Amino acid sequence: MDVPAESPSPGLQPGQLLARGVCRHMLSLGFATVEELVPTGGLRVDVMALGPKGEVWVIECKSSRADYMADHKWQGYLPWCDRFFWAVGQDFPAELLPDETGLIIADPYDAEILRMGPETRLSGARRKVMVQKFARHAALRLQALRDPQHSGLL
Amino acid sequence: MDVPAESPSPGLQPGQLLARGVCRHMLSLGFATVEELVPTGGLRVDVMALGPKGEVWVIECKSSRADYMADHKWQGYLPWCDRFFWAVGQDFPAELLPDETGLIIADPYDAEILRMGPETRLSGARRKVMVQKFARHAALRLQALRDPQHSGLL
Repeated sequence: MDVPAESPSPGLQPGQLLARGVCRHMLSLGFATVEELVPTGGLRVDVMALGPKGEVWVIECKSSRADYMADHKWQGYLPWCDRFFWAVGQDFPAELLPDETGLIIADPYDAEILRMGPETRLSGARRKVMVQKFARHAALRLQALRDPQHSGLL
Repeated sequence: MDVPAESPSPGLQPGQLLARGVCRHMLSLGFATVEELVPTGGLRVDVMALGPKGEVWVIECKSSRADYMADHKWQGYLPWCDRFFWAVGQDFPAELLPDETGLIIADPYDAEILRMGPETRLSGARRKVMVQKFARHAALRLQALRDPQHSGLL
């Protein structure tokens, strides 16, 4: 019987473990990240990354073929970022993914960009909105962790 | 002999306890906050608050007269915010503080704005810089708390 290796982090789902590896790699590229940001009603991106020059990237993490096939919203994310990427495990059938999107191979500990997402630059007005959403999202979640007895708005 | 009341939070300094109360109150006003943000080299603000319309407020927390008298940098914060406030405890000699600044009375649990800081609106370019600094600061600290084994850049 196989003995499972030490769990990489017991509380996280497979997609969240990929997101953790993605966020670590983005940090090494100088990008700050948040998870589960809502760019507009009805959409929630797995990872939004904010680069040193204000670049806005969105990364959707798919832990399985079924997880990917169930996503009918991803094209709705494109107008909210400069570049769009999928992040998948190394066993994922990457040929399923559209050519005109970025591709990141991830595990719970790190990630690597295999194919850059094509750039479609946000307008100045939309970038401003997205950076502000990112800022408030990150700060409200940070405050909830720093001051857990008082996180009424989350 | 007086028996001290339960400590409000053992690890925090008096100024940090004021900041916590300030951040709680700002949250009730719809402002997200971060602590100890560096707007430019050599300056570090106690609290930067980001309002729902992109307002940038700076709040300096002073736990004592000596703490205030030792601050020779506060005028340097004015060009980095739309409004500037002091936050002090109720026993602080508020007459020391310049009239043309905002005043917040705070304790570790909450705060109240007694005098609004006058508005000197940031330029669009500087607001963009400040919102982006706020965003990256909040997200990097959040990541350090969420993923403490990997916070190399902090």
